[in-house]
Amino acid sequence: MYDLIIIGMGPGGYEASLTALRKGLNIAIVEKSKVGGNCLNRACIPTKYFRSAAHQLEKLKKLSDYGIVVENYTVDYSKAFEGKEKTITFLRNSLLNLLKSKKVPVYRGTGKIVGKNQVEVTYPEGNRELIEGKFILIATGSIPSSIGNIKPDGELIITTEQFMDNLNKLPESLLVIGAGVAGCELGYISAVFGSKVHIVEISDRLLPSKIFSKEISKNLLRKFNQLGIETNFNTTVTDISRDNRKATVTLSNGKILTVDKILLTVGRVPNTSDIDTVGIEKDSKGFIKVNDYLQTNFENIYAVGDVVNSPMLAHIASYEAKIVLHNITEDEKISPDYTLTPWSVFSGYEIGHVGLNEEEAKERGIEVITGYYPYLYNEKAADELDNEGYVRLYFNRSDLKIIGADVVGIGASELIHQISLFIKHGYTAKEIHDFIYFHPSLSEIFIYATYDVAIGKLF
Amino acid sequence: MYDLIIIGMGPGGYEASLTALRKGLNIAIVEKSKVGGNCLNRACIPTKYFRSAAHQLEKLKKLSDYGIVVENYTVDYSKAFEGKEKTITFLRNSLLNLLKSKKVPVYRGTGKIVGKNQVEVTYPEGNRELIEGKFILIATGSIPSSIGNIKPDGELIITTEQFMDNLNKLPESLLVIGAGVAGCELGYISAVFGSKVHIVEISDRLLPSKIFSKEISKNLLRKFNQLGIETNFNTTVTDISRDNRKATVTLSNGKILTVDKILLTVGRVPNTSDIDTVGIEKDSKGFIKVNDYLQTNFENIYAVGDVVNSPMLAHIASYEAKIVLHNITEDEKISPDYTLTPWSVFSGYEIGHVGLNEEEAKERGIEVITGYYPYLYNEKAADELDNEGYVRLYFNRSDLKIIGADVVGIGASELIHQISLFIKHGYTAKEIHDFIYFHPSLSEIFIYATYDVAIGKLF
Repeated sequence: MYDLIIIGMGPGGYEASLTALRKGLNIAIVEKSKVGGNCLNRACIPTKYFRSAAHQLEKLKKLSDYGIVVENYTVDYSKAFEGKEKTITFLRNSLLNLLKSKKVPVYRGTGKIVGKNQVEVTYPEGNRELIEGKFILIATGSIPSSIGNIKPDGELIITTEQFMDNLNKLPESLLVIGAGVAGCELGYISAVFGSKVHIVEISDRLLPSKIFSKEISKNLLRKFNQLGIETNFNTTVTDISRDNRKATVTLSNGKILTVDKILLTVGRVPNTSDIDTVGIEKDSKGFIKVNDYLQTNFENIYAVGDVVNSPMLAHIASYEAKIVLHNITEDEKISPDYTLTPWSVFSGYEIGHVGLNEEEAKERGIEVITGYYPYLYNEKAADELDNEGYVRLYFNRSDLKIIGADVVGIGASELIHQISLFIKHGYTAKEIHDFIYFHPSLSEIFIYATYDVAIGKLF
Repeated sequence: MYDLIIIGMGPGGYEASLTALRKGLNIAIVEKSKVGGNCLNRACIPTKYFRSAAHQLEKLKKLSDYGIVVENYTVDYSKAFEGKEKTITFLRNSLLNLLKSKKVPVYRGTGKIVGKNQVEVTYPEGNRELIEGKFILIATGSIPSSIGNIKPDGELIITTEQFMDNLNKLPESLLVIGAGVAGCELGYISAVFGSKVHIVEISDRLLPSKIFSKEISKNLLRKFNQLGIETNFNTTVTDISRDNRKATVTLSNGKILTVDKILLTVGRVPNTSDIDTVGIEKDSKGFIKVNDYLQTNFENIYAVGDVVNSPMLAHIASYEAKIVLHNITEDEKISPDYTLTPWSVFSGYEIGHVGLNEEEAKERGIEVITGYYPYLYNEKAADELDNEGYVRLYFNRSDLKIIGADVVGIGASELIHQISLFIKHGYTAKEIHDFIYFHPSLSEIFIYATYDVAIGKLF
């Protein structure tokens, strides 16, 4: 009997396995597809790869200011696709080699919990094997959801996974349904690499989520407009008809579009429909119900990541995996705390958010005062020829302590961690202002974004 | 009478002026050269500009992995020089416009303190003006030092300032004397832009300072070797003879080099030789003596930045300026704390350091255990096609609390601020390990660099 069977080798699963190995546990892994999960193979990592490529492509026009005069260049998405493959293959193999060197058995099939301590693995050929574990961790992630009668066919209508796995040539025209994180990321990438991109969004803005302020949406929209991305808000798709290899799409705002592909990015649902025969409890949306210690209704069976109802983020899966490994190896159990979950989007801008924004604060009855500073005057951003963006800091008006931040611009996804720490340790605007930041650095924006609140207004 | 006269408009001076204006003080500025000081005009900002350009130039070779196939490009340093001018001019004008809009008098001459409350301004034409201030802040910075009989002439032998102000065409061959921060930065830039670079360093390594570990030096040297930079350690210049427009340089190691230019980067000395007639106390090196509140021997005269004996860094000047502004406007005086001074170098790698490294810790009798992780396996670095480098974290072996860090690789100069905060709040390896970082981010390296110490070894 293994100490721990991990079902699903995405960010939750591999963090769990690394920690388990270091703690000396005897583990087994069940994975039906590629190790690394969607995150490494079809989502976070390849998306940021293409986004870095797109951002670099945008920057190419500015390089003469660096004395680099690019006279001739061509853009070939299929080469970017190859580069993406090379990069994720290297990372995946690193992980595989590590597991191999530690002699960890990886069962290459679909895992189903058939007893309190029993996992049945079904191999692609149909044969089955039963393995036993003292503890079991469910980390099977999520799958793309669809809406109404718009069903991905892998050809004309594709999911984000299919975009990443198969699309080594971008379509001339692309309709993106849904302007959430994935829609804004893949829409941006496609537009910069030359596709004519249309976005349809049922709500009234890009990134329609409380996490992302309307100010963020507005800035990103301006950038999308510059890139020629056509946006349709408060709009749904009412009809899709196929003609040869194209789709004619009727929108609720009256527009009729003809596009080469449709990318469906309308959220994800937990991948739990066939996870067990023992009666693991789920909620109405299919999320596995867990207690504060991430235990299911079986005390030796835990669940982490997209299968539980916490933020659907890779780093939350790995954070939860650490908690689970603590809970199955230590006497005193601990619980996750999602307060300082960092959020980032890699689209027309790099966007970061942590803590509360004004809207979220208001809902909790917190009166807010904000600090703002544009990247335009940050010396490091100027040196990088990349001075678009801003920082918006949110403070509790009563004690001037920071409660959250939006960062829009280069480095946003790193800078938010400083904010996490400022929030965690109750920093006031003055304390953030007085902190010593390297000059020149992007981090110095915090000195300037706190000036008004900490010291007094200049104008 | 002004509330405050600020002599020198570098990072110390402009931080002081911004804070003073926000506090409603009636200020005057004395600046003999360009506002922004050396930092903005001839050091930090232009250096990082050229370094970003050089780094981008290095990256150009990798862009086909992004599907960007650059068929033809030329490199023209004079265009980079123009771009640098444009960038710093924009930043300088932003500062000037701000001062103008607040109607701050800027006396465009050399300031000398001739009475407890009196500053005499000598204009370039020789005429003089006396102004009076309740408080006076000395922030006149530093000037390059020279060694022995090697005197900069602005043509064959130049200072870093002359490199930045005048050198709009790089020499075919360049000898850099001194492998400190400036030598390693400008040597790297010159090499990438096509100069044949030789470095002569009297000690045994690059960045010969306790601040930078031998591991950092070794890594940077490998990179310099790759770039074809010739290094001469434990070596001095014994003779320079001039022949036409070239220099023939004899080194103590027996080598004889013929080069087009010599860059002298052997440190800086405080610019205080002609600062007063009232007897402001200085130490033997010319640093102005200040007490814990940054007051000189005149209680209304303060000094900050390179003129006082604290780390010669722009951000330390501005940090001290904030302290002074507090001390002249609030009842209770405060003192600077340099413990968490962040250090960065922008050379063949972006290098960051904060807190103590192993050598510094040993000197204080602290037994150290370290954590290491290479950028190679960081997913974000992989996506950026920029996965060279590593993180080395230093922990106190007795309680596993972090005491310092070296970061070598992209983002180093930002990531060190997270480390500053971890040190400040006494984080253990485990607490750093358990912190939630966005995935994928460079910051996640901290999860992996703490694994061995926090959880246990894998191998």
